[in-house]
Amino acid sequence: MRYDELAELGQQLRVDAVRAAQAAGSGHPTSSMSAADLGAVLLAHHLRYDFAHPAHPGNDRLILSKGHASPLLYALYRAAGVVDEAELLTFRRKGSRLEGHPTPRLPWVDVATGSLGQGLPVGVGMALAGQRLDQLPYRVWVLCGDSELAEGSVWEAVEHAGHERLDNLTLIVDVNRLGQRGPTRLGWDLDAYAARLAAFGWHTVAVDGHDVAAVDAAYREAASTEGRPTAVLARTLKGKGVAGVEDEEGQHGKPLPDAERAIEELGGARSARIGVALPVGSRRPERPKPEQVSWPRYELGEQVATRAAFGDALAALGSERDDVVVLDGEVGDSTKAGVFGEAHPERYFECYIAEQQLVAGAVGLRARGYVPYAVTFAAFLTRAHDFIRMAAVSGLAIQLCGSHAGVSIGEDGPSQMGLEDLAMMRAVHGSTVLHPCDAHQTAYLVREMADLPGIGYLRTCRSPMPVIYGPDEEFPVGGSKVLRSGPDDRVTVIGAGTTVHQALRAGELLESVGIPVRVIDLYSVKPVDEVALRAAAEATGCLLTVEDHRPEGGLGDAVAATFADGRPQPRLVRLAVRDMPGSATLEEQVRAAGIDAEAIAATVMLLTGRAVVS
Amino acid sequence: MRYDELAELGQQLRVDAVRAAQAAGSGHPTSSMSAADLGAVLLAHHLRYDFAHPAHPGNDRLILSKGHASPLLYALYRAAGVVDEAELLTFRRKGSRLEGHPTPRLPWVDVATGSLGQGLPVGVGMALAGQRLDQLPYRVWVLCGDSELAEGSVWEAVEHAGHERLDNLTLIVDVNRLGQRGPTRLGWDLDAYAARLAAFGWHTVAVDGHDVAAVDAAYREAASTEGRPTAVLARTLKGKGVAGVEDEEGQHGKPLPDAERAIEELGGARSARIGVALPVGSRRPERPKPEQVSWPRYELGEQVATRAAFGDALAALGSERDDVVVLDGEVGDSTKAGVFGEAHPERYFECYIAEQQLVAGAVGLRARGYVPYAVTFAAFLTRAHDFIRMAAVSGLAIQLCGSHAGVSIGEDGPSQMGLEDLAMMRAVHGSTVLHPCDAHQTAYLVREMADLPGIGYLRTCRSPMPVIYGPDEEFPVGGSKVLRSGPDDRVTVIGAGTTVHQALRAGELLESVGIPVRVIDLYSVKPVDEVALRAAAEATGCLLTVEDHRPEGGLGDAVAATFADGRPQPRLVRLAVRDMPGSATLEEQVRAAGIDAEAIAATVMLLTGRAVVS
Repeated sequence: MRYDELAELGQQLRVDAVRAAQAAGSGHPTSSMSAADLGAVLLAHHLRYDFAHPAHPGNDRLILSKGHASPLLYALYRAAGVVDEAELLTFRRKGSRLEGHPTPRLPWVDVATGSLGQGLPVGVGMALAGQRLDQLPYRVWVLCGDSELAEGSVWEAVEHAGHERLDNLTLIVDVNRLGQRGPTRLGWDLDAYAARLAAFGWHTVAVDGHDVAAVDAAYREAASTEGRPTAVLARTLKGKGVAGVEDEEGQHGKPLPDAERAIEELGGARSARIGVALPVGSRRPERPKPEQVSWPRYELGEQVATRAAFGDALAALGSERDDVVVLDGEVGDSTKAGVFGEAHPERYFECYIAEQQLVAGAVGLRARGYVPYAVTFAAFLTRAHDFIRMAAVSGLAIQLCGSHAGVSIGEDGPSQMGLEDLAMMRAVHGSTVLHPCDAHQTAYLVREMADLPGIGYLRTCRSPMPVIYGPDEEFPVGGSKVLRSGPDDRVTVIGAGTTVHQALRAGELLESVGIPVRVIDLYSVKPVDEVALRAAAEATGCLLTVEDHRPEGGLGDAVAATFADGRPQPRLVRLAVRDMPGSATLEEQVRAAGIDAEAIAATVMLLTGRAVVS
Repeated sequence: MRYDELAELGQQLRVDAVRAAQAAGSGHPTSSMSAADLGAVLLAHHLRYDFAHPAHPGNDRLILSKGHASPLLYALYRAAGVVDEAELLTFRRKGSRLEGHPTPRLPWVDVATGSLGQGLPVGVGMALAGQRLDQLPYRVWVLCGDSELAEGSVWEAVEHAGHERLDNLTLIVDVNRLGQRGPTRLGWDLDAYAARLAAFGWHTVAVDGHDVAAVDAAYREAASTEGRPTAVLARTLKGKGVAGVEDEEGQHGKPLPDAERAIEELGGARSARIGVALPVGSRRPERPKPEQVSWPRYELGEQVATRAAFGDALAALGSERDDVVVLDGEVGDSTKAGVFGEAHPERYFECYIAEQQLVAGAVGLRARGYVPYAVTFAAFLTRAHDFIRMAAVSGLAIQLCGSHAGVSIGEDGPSQMGLEDLAMMRAVHGSTVLHPCDAHQTAYLVREMADLPGIGYLRTCRSPMPVIYGPDEEFPVGGSKVLRSGPDDRVTVIGAGTTVHQALRAGELLESVGIPVRVIDLYSVKPVDEVALRAAAEATGCLLTVEDHRPEGGLGDAVAATFADGRPQPRLVRLAVRDMPGSATLEEQVRAAGIDAEAIAATVMLLTGRAVVS
């Protein structure tokens, strides 16, 4: 395309952004207008994408990290001929694919954006897939705003991309100098941005983002730069092309004051259609044939930490399935994800202590068809909460494992204890939350997770626990195990993880004083086994949940929610971690928290009207 | 102190770290040993701190960001004479103040650490207090590890400190080149670290971290550098001083293999006592006398968004109390925190789009005695989840406000909707969770929050709602309002925020078909008003919760938990947002989510055995 045509295309995109926002009565036209020329040049000259086949393995990836500039993206799709004018004007309407912020409801959108600072870390995950696994020459293009460079997640990604020398990754920064409420810290100081990125090993090119020839050259330079990722730093004007709006404060996130006049000023509506270049590579490398592996087996009664069983199973799963990849937050020796790393180093991604990049990397790898397990301490997954939330918006299945759950980690103290993780993970849309108490159960669930449709979470513990299940027992998601029951059970004690063992011990204590109780291992915290819980409720009338977690949002809430259907309910009681722990041994911790066998037994005795024997 | 004495002090600290870990049987002696000389020089020559008066306003602040190196910190306290040998050896025992990771259980620790990458952002908050509010010459010293520089939160802080020219802040980086499971990305490449920090406006000094004279000079340089924060980049050896451990992999986080021999090699135990310099300034500037302010008043029936009332109230509170400070995540025009910014610019901290720094800044300001309100979209507070968790470990009262809660924001779509925030905030230890439905209620609660003992959370909504309460009504934390009731109520409908208005409208609809219902405004989601809920349960037998939030962890769980006391329960039903919303108008959203008046009325009719009238 000639440069004057490219400039015209930029104007078309601006007009379409203005029209879409005008039709919607809301949206971000000015943030779209600043990046219009950047988008035009990319679409017409650089992007290699088969719009008819979004799943084509050789397609470039385009992530609009500044998701609020969705009108620009939709205008690009119109120029590519996959969204028509009528659809463009459905922007932000109920049922439209053209949402306020892009989501994979559109087949060309890999990941939802709109929470700023996420596009680059996710793009890093995709670029890692391209470089290390697919070995295909696709490029990952991330278009982001200047404001979002304040997000730490961006710098986790900048560091990771520089370190991994991701030369298949290009970051385009739309430096329009205006954030939501006023100027950014750096304004148009492209040198400052360049110095920062260069310090992390990036190549940078600074351009006038409205000079299409310069932008074209910059993208060429990015594509031909080897051994380093490239950032194109583009000086632009927010609201470019419309007087009274261009480069003005107070014009963020709303339709233009006079859209008709603006469209006229931009030269009126156009309908140029761009023939986007097709991808060049499509064959992924042959991967080694999956092996017949022996699945981990343990002896009944053997002391095995669920984190250890997790590591063993993950490594075995990696032999069984060549699509499984693992991401570590520099704690693989503690979480035991490192066992996978030793067995399958080519599919092990060390993300260092950067949990946002850890989860974003998983999202990017999932978008490229892999089955990622992102693993760190349960407590530190909170660091990536927003990325988990957005992965759910994207509808992408990523698997998370959080180790060192609960007070039962012992001496390390509360900073290292996952005590809020069940609450966080249960509230994620479409999530599955699993908390095994045994090595075989853990191993079984690790394998099940690989085929979950949404976000999976496995909670493991630091300390060894006895193996109580045989190697061939099955543990379906949504199931539970009744570990102890009899016709005269007075109460049902429900645990998961370490508290299952406390419940079993309490069962023995109570038996010795003539109070039979049922014990349920509720390893599937979401979804819960409603059938088993209802049966237990009917049989015993009273359910006692015991969890190594805060009282809010975990096992107790999950069980209670089961009965919130308007029918009469059983009596419920919950034991959970109500105080702030300090350092102490495992035994001291669970005793202090009141979630040990003695506390369970005492509670059951109170519930059954028996005095506590002390 | 002479340099040979300083070196001796470094050895004493190493020996004490080794002894503490040996006594505990766990801990991180090697990570303490690398930083021992850095700590020795700081304590003996640079820190100005009155250990007898930790609350002295002129005290320097010392944050051990690499919290796992707590044995070093405790060894420093021993050298300062405030921890004796016997206490040192209680390290990591139950009841000891010397926890695995430092917490404010020790009077000289301002904030808990142990989740890496938090010390610097919190230090930035303290340094901002020193520079802008206290105007005292204290310095903030943050000692961090090299591994934790991978955390994005560190770079949010680096940028913020550079931008704010915090020359009262010194970052000391213990570059021992070894992380938990192996070498860091950059090893001993101090130049690379320096280039990164310099690009963000920092002054840097690179030194051999075991050359006490060089370290001394570097700290002097840091203290005398004006207009910029300084980073002292210290090349060190992990496990320094003990052969077979020094600079070896696989020695992270455990006692030394032969502690006795190591102590001997380090020259044996010592008991030097350091006279730490006292602070030089103590008088904070006179602040303007609090004004008599008129508290915001609205007309009954007036349409006012709770976010707007929040902004008005916050500004008024700022006039009433001079200790209130506000932090904004570059969305102050949306959250309405900006109203405070206009009224009290000197106490308004713009953190740009960096939510971890936003919350960490609040933590730092709280530690200096201010009452911070950190404000952004509810959805984006998830970004700072780990900082909120750690603030709870610190026991610090910070106030958070999340706006744009729920699907009722309308067209912007799910990326902008706070739908998991109640779950996140309820599970925080000691938190208070408030969700007002009316302007006067919001204003009242904004004022109440200032005196909360722990972490407070106020959830506000984007769209206007009618004012239903008078200006003098009181809304105590833990309370609720019965908005509709009669002797024949069949069901109690419980809402908060927007759903209160839907519940009221449902009450009218149901009245018209002869089904009286009670309506409760449960504005205090944690703690909940157990008395009112029990009374409603007794009177109506059935409670229906309605929330603009995920079904997990929010209002429904909070109400259910109230009845988990082993006594017979009322029937419970919950309406919540179960699907993934797209873009749509407010009305379409609440209808699609099934949390509008019609859905409430239909549910009540089902519950009461009446066919649904449609």
